[in-house]
Amino acid sequence: MGERRGLKGLQKQCSATMLLLHRAVVSAFRHACRFKSTSSKLCIQACSTNDSFQPQCPSLTFSGNNSSTRGWRVMGTLLGLGAVLAYHDHRCKAAQELPRIYTREEVRSHSSPETRIWVTLGSEVFDVTEFVDLHPGGPSKLMLAAGGPLEPFWALYAVHNQSHVREILAQYKIGELSPEDKAPSTLKTSDPYADDPIRHPALKVNSQRPFNAEPPPELLTENYITPNPIFFTRNHLPVPNLDPDTYRLHVEGPPGGQSLSLSLDDLYQFPKHEITVTLQCAGNRRSEMTQVKEVRGLEWSIGAISTAHWAGARLCDVLAQAGHQLCETEAHVCFEGLDSDPTGTAYGASIPLARAMDPEAEVLLAYEMNGQPLPRDHGFPVRVVVPGVVGARHVKWLGKVSVASEESYSHWQRRDYKGFSPSVDWDTVDFDSAPSIQELPVQSAITEPKDGATVESGEVTIKGYAWSGGGRAVIRVDVSLDGGLTWQVAKLDGEEQCPRKAWAWRLWELQAPVPAGQKELNIVCKAIDDSYNVQPDTMAPIWNLRGVLSNAWHRIHVHVRANP
Amino acid sequence: MGERRGLKGLQKQCSATMLLLHRAVVSAFRHACRFKSTSSKLCIQACSTNDSFQPQCPSLTFSGNNSSTRGWRVMGTLLGLGAVLAYHDHRCKAAQELPRIYTREEVRSHSSPETRIWVTLGSEVFDVTEFVDLHPGGPSKLMLAAGGPLEPFWALYAVHNQSHVREILAQYKIGELSPEDKAPSTLKTSDPYADDPIRHPALKVNSQRPFNAEPPPELLTENYITPNPIFFTRNHLPVPNLDPDTYRLHVEGPPGGQSLSLSLDDLYQFPKHEITVTLQCAGNRRSEMTQVKEVRGLEWSIGAISTAHWAGARLCDVLAQAGHQLCETEAHVCFEGLDSDPTGTAYGASIPLARAMDPEAEVLLAYEMNGQPLPRDHGFPVRVVVPGVVGARHVKWLGKVSVASEESYSHWQRRDYKGFSPSVDWDTVDFDSAPSIQELPVQSAITEPKDGATVESGEVTIKGYAWSGGGRAVIRVDVSLDGGLTWQVAKLDGEEQCPRKAWAWRLWELQAPVPAGQKELNIVCKAIDDSYNVQPDTMAPIWNLRGVLSNAWHRIHVHVRANP
Repeated sequence: MGERRGLKGLQKQCSATMLLLHRAVVSAFRHACRFKSTSSKLCIQACSTNDSFQPQCPSLTFSGNNSSTRGWRVMGTLLGLGAVLAYHDHRCKAAQELPRIYTREEVRSHSSPETRIWVTLGSEVFDVTEFVDLHPGGPSKLMLAAGGPLEPFWALYAVHNQSHVREILAQYKIGELSPEDKAPSTLKTSDPYADDPIRHPALKVNSQRPFNAEPPPELLTENYITPNPIFFTRNHLPVPNLDPDTYRLHVEGPPGGQSLSLSLDDLYQFPKHEITVTLQCAGNRRSEMTQVKEVRGLEWSIGAISTAHWAGARLCDVLAQAGHQLCETEAHVCFEGLDSDPTGTAYGASIPLARAMDPEAEVLLAYEMNGQPLPRDHGFPVRVVVPGVVGARHVKWLGKVSVASEESYSHWQRRDYKGFSPSVDWDTVDFDSAPSIQELPVQSAITEPKDGATVESGEVTIKGYAWSGGGRAVIRVDVSLDGGLTWQVAKLDGEEQCPRKAWAWRLWELQAPVPAGQKELNIVCKAIDDSYNVQPDTMAPIWNLRGVLSNAWHRIHVHVRANP
Repeated sequence: MGERRGLKGLQKQCSATMLLLHRAVVSAFRHACRFKSTSSKLCIQACSTNDSFQPQCPSLTFSGNNSSTRGWRVMGTLLGLGAVLAYHDHRCKAAQELPRIYTREEVRSHSSPETRIWVTLGSEVFDVTEFVDLHPGGPSKLMLAAGGPLEPFWALYAVHNQSHVREILAQYKIGELSPEDKAPSTLKTSDPYADDPIRHPALKVNSQRPFNAEPPPELLTENYITPNPIFFTRNHLPVPNLDPDTYRLHVEGPPGGQSLSLSLDDLYQFPKHEITVTLQCAGNRRSEMTQVKEVRGLEWSIGAISTAHWAGARLCDVLAQAGHQLCETEAHVCFEGLDSDPTGTAYGASIPLARAMDPEAEVLLAYEMNGQPLPRDHGFPVRVVVPGVVGARHVKWLGKVSVASEESYSHWQRRDYKGFSPSVDWDTVDFDSAPSIQELPVQSAITEPKDGATVESGEVTIKGYAWSGGGRAVIRVDVSLDGGLTWQVAKLDGEEQCPRKAWAWRLWELQAPVPAGQKELNIVCKAIDDSYNVQPDTMAPIWNLRGVLSNAWHRIHVHVRANP
């Protein structure tokens, strides 16, 4: 008992010392970061501890090469997770002078904060206790692997398979598995994505697991309605394989009311409503924003946008049948997908009740896409379609609808898909300070010619798309051949749309003479919507740490073929 | 008869010749304009005619000084009228080698296209036949003066009293009044603005007749609610002096229904609805756009925006009482003011019926402004308030409300208050090609410090306003001290507003340290609304010939006081 008390006292003492030291280290680290060009190596020996004691803060190494810092940043980028992580402040890790050998049995006994948390990857053993709270996917996800191998979980989130992630992990290495335990884990590594559907080979894949892909620009504006097989796909989790015969949509009733459990046939009984709607991912054109400064997110080009003709029941009709009414106080309709991670956490999002209940907003529980049942990648059998609103709220594989006084508690509603000032970084971001993205701003892009292409002299044909959120119609697209000095008005094409309900994009085209003698063209486009909102000139001032809302002028550079 | 035929033949011949000559002249003129730096004087003797015949195209003079071109441009600018005028193409005018003497009697006999149209100004006589169709205010306005003096009409539109306008007129001079007729016209020049109300001396006046004025920036954001006396004023005509006891609002019923004639007391019987709404003129911040290239319009600084608490009857309630319903096909609610010009043409505008009938859009027939009856300058006794929509639709001194299948035929609805590409000029503009401005885009400006001011070193306090159209809330204001390279987030202030109904501005403030050693600051602000629309970086790419929708980043330049 006395010994334990002594140990506790020592721990307390050490904690206080650690706090002070930690502050000094953080301050020094920040200083180091501020002067990245410093090439001298700065080593801080923070705390040297007895090996039998829990190793805590061994050494922090800074050098001019900040690839490790980059690793930290990139890690959070993956998965589309935006957790606030003061990475730099928590570089304390378990380490040792000599490699130690452990058995799988020993590793298994370290599966809680009390016993410390160990994991393995291949033959290496890591003590990730200090990292659990910093895990971008949340502590609970990492705890699933506590005391065992990481492989089954990394199979789920393939984004872990990157050198940056391994680099971070390496800092927590405490030893190796014993030779007899080095054989592959007996735990069956089942692939949660094995059942994902086959995809069209034309899609440009940004991530296989979860599947994220966009059509190539040259196909994107070939048709006003995007064919289902090349419609951009933004999955957050494996695609569930749902049986339409047993599928039920759970619609929670109001307090004191009764809930509905709707089969597909039940949904078909509601008036069938059909609309053409463009969906756009918040991260569309992120790759251009990345050129300003690194962000966390998938490298979407200009194709994270597509248009389909959707049919389904209106959400307001279904909510009304469940007894819901528009209330005076602010309320939200929460959606839950049937796609879920190993903890059972489903994809989720919400929209304001006012939008959901407004017949003019035409929010659908869609079961058809371009006259076909929804493809599996797009939410079979039922997804939400919220016209004019960011793709992230169009929840696929819809399992549950409920009304709440607050927004969905889903990670993707509260800790992602929000916009911030360029000054906000992962050390300072406060996700509660920004509203969730709902309506998107005005957008346009050039799909032809391609950036870097060579065009004929004489005349050039320029094509693209333009769209705005909130039902605002695109009224004009200006195109420049000289980087924005002079402009020409493009010809707009596309379906007629009702005022205030312009849910779908306009395709546009401009045939312009190539000024004689011009060797290259800096082609730029910008769209204007019927609230006369315009796209900003440049990306840097709208840069944000998640790389969303990337809607500055689209710029391409092409060469003009010299006349023979 | 024979003689008349001969004359007609001669006229025809001359017309054909004129057409060719006209083309040559226009082409030469365009050429001259293209090479403005050319200092040589280019004279084209186009057509020399017999004085007894109608003088047509005497001579066109071009020189390096293109002040005359500028005059043409400026003239249309005035009045807020945006008529399409191919000025350069129509420089044919009446002229003569020697001054001729005419009596008022002779002048009076020239009052129709058949007899040609003469007018006088002071003792000079002008043949404006060829100019009538080019008159920026429309032919009908000019025809009012046909055969007589211009003074009574120029008294109505004081903007004519500018050297540019006199310069244009000079080209049409054909002679002088006879000595006995040189005495001032006996026609009484009554001043239609004589009865305009007394205004607050703090207002910065952009035009006295009609009265257009804005509060100075330093007063603008002193209060969240703008005091009535300094609320910006945008009048198009003299202020009518209406008797509240006899005032009637005429509301046309639907076909087969009955119309209403509402007294003020009748209006008070409708439920009283109160809202805080910011009004902004489409031309707010035009003076900054003018710096890119000349535009036509009043030189508003950043103060053509103000906020008041309005009370009145909801338009939807009044329309419903008249028997109107929301219809499937597009329709518009047209408003007519009781302010009118000498032809009896009233100010008018319209909004879509869908907005008018939507209780959530909260369109008011307002009779109170900040707890007081409307001041005369702001529409006493009743004006329309259309939250989230450009000021031009908030018709003052409301006389009539009707529902039509098309927008108001008012000049201000169809030939003004529209946005165009920077490539569109007065030669190419097609007003039918652009939608009338309704909802305005996101906007912000710096009210303190003033541009050019000297601020203390140490810390600078920056203040301003931010607002967006369509009920979209301002969610953030970014401020830069270095011209937009780095940003800080300002603190927002102002009333809580309902989602989708953020009708009023936010005031904002930032206290920022002045970087040591900095001698000057380039302060910039930009606002972001809840659709994440942003302001464009620069003015040139949103430049338009009427200088409306001027919402690029607001930029000021200040000096930092040197430390003693």
